[in-house]
This record gives sequence, C-alpha cells and structure tokens, in this order.
Amino acid sequence: MKILTALILSGSVLTMSLPASAQFAKAEDAIKYRKNALFVMQQNFGRVAGMAAGKIPFDAKVAAESAGVADFVAKLPWAGFGPGTDKGETKAKAEIWTDKAKFDDYANKMQAEMSKLSAAAKTGNLENIKLAVNATGGACKACHDDFRSK
Amino acid sequence: MKILTALILSGSVLTMSLPASAQFAKAEDAIKYRKNALFVMQQNFGRVAGMAAGKIPFDAKVAAESAGVADFVAKLPWAGFGPGTDKGETKAKAEIWTDKAKFDDYANKMQAEMSKLSAAAKTGNLENIKLAVNATGGACKACHDDFRSK
Repeated sequence: MKILTALILSGSVLTMSLPASAQFAKAEDAIKYRKNALFVMQQNFGRVAGMAAGKIPFDAKVAAESAGVADFVAKLPWAGFGPGTDKGETKAKAEIWTDKAKFDDYANKMQAEMSKLSAAAKTGNLENIKLAVNATGGACKACHDDFRSK
Repeated sequence: MKILTALILSGSVLTMSLPASAQFAKAEDAIKYRKNALFVMQQNFGRVAGMAAGKIPFDAKVAAESAGVADFVAKLPWAGFGPGTDKGETKAKAEIWTDKAKFDDYANKMQAEMSKLSAAAKTGNLENIKLAVNATGGACKACHDDFRSK
C-alpha cells in the first residue's frame, strides 16, 4: 500500500471532507483538468481540421483515429467547471456559472458535433469531414465568443 | 472556411513541411500534449486509488467511469514522445530516447495494468480494484523512477 499512500500524500486525490460528487481535490486541479482535456481534444481536432483545410496531407486512418480521440476527450472538460472553479488561472468568464444552462447547451452542442465528425472521419470521405469540421469549429467558436476571455 | 483559416493561422495545426507521421506542429505542443494527457489520466486514476485506499468514499459507478477514462487516456501520451521532444519544459530524461525499447516496455505495461484496473472497476469489487490499483501504481512508479527527473 506504499504507492497508494504516496498518491494520497501527494495531494492528488480528494480528502474525506468532500462529497464524492466533488471530483477534484482542489479548484486548481479542476481548472487544470479542463484546460488539459481541452488541449488534448484541440490537438486531435486541429489535425483533422488541418487535413480538411488542405494544410496537412489527408490520411484517412490518422483522421479517423484523431477524430475518435477528440470525440472521447470532448466529454471530459465539463467535470472541471464545478462550483468554486471560477477563480484562478483561467480565461473562463463568470457567466459560465451565472448562465450555466446556456453554457451547458454549447458544451452539449460541441460534443454532438464532435461525434458527427468522428462518424464522418470513419467514412474516409474528405467532403463529409470538411462539413463536420466546420460545424464543430463553429460550435467551439460560439462558446469561446460568449464564455472565454480574450 | 473562415474558422478553418483561423485554426491554421493560430498555429494549432501542422504545416505541409512535416510528414503526416509527425503529429504535432511544434515540439512544445508535443510536450504539452503528453503532460496534459498524463494529468487527465492521473486525476481519474487518483480518484480510484483514493477509493482503494479508503480516503474517498467508494462509489462503484464513479470508480468504473474514472477507470474507464484513465484506461482510454493512458493510450495517448506516447505520441508526444517523438524525436526532438527531449528539450523544453519537461522532466523527461534523455534516456527515454536513448533507451526507447525499455521506455516503451514500461509504457505498454502501464497501459496493460490500467486496462486491467478498468476491468476490475467494472466488476464493482473493491478488493479487485485495490489489487489492480496497486499494480497500476507500481507500473507508473517504475517508469518515473527510471525516466523522470525529480
């Protein structure tokens, strides 16, 4: 159990004082989690977007893999936007927490578009991929415009 | 295509001068990618480890979800350890690139243990989870001991 003890002592896990629903030990972990998940997603999405724009040679296998990863990871950042995670190293606007329903709508829309992109990438049809990339990019941008500081 | 153009201009995707196999636009993106993916994995693994250690109330559903995410994300960091990514903001030791076979063995072992942890978490049996957490934590530690600077 030494490894477990080390993990606990390193502060990487919750303490008993928090409810199980609070998934992070500290607000800064939640903020880092959502930023890191979004970066991992963006790197995979950006690769497919680059192929769609003709800036990267189209490779159907890489596109399908990258879009699949982006689709999975697109589900993760939202756990990091819990109550009390509005302050810290973040560009997240306060409106995320005061207009949560709208934010959640954007988040759900993006996830839906990313799933469609993953499905399109599996077909290997570049025209389908282009359309889905544009719809997904639009969903990213809509949320950034309203809820992310410059 | 405005969104695509913006994505390209932001430097978030590769340029034509790189082969398709080079998945990142810049070495610093690759370094950030592997660190971010490992953090997302660690947060999910750490939650399950905390439950295994009795530091977080055991919630079988959350444990299964978190272990499932950790299992998926455990496959991602390795793309970020390509040639030329040894210098920068990283604790990665040079030995990763000079003894790649050993590093890859550790990486594969960790992924295999994380998959077993995910399977164990799906059973909902806390004793199985404890054993799998310890094996996975051991695989993390073995690699950190040899290939990560303090």
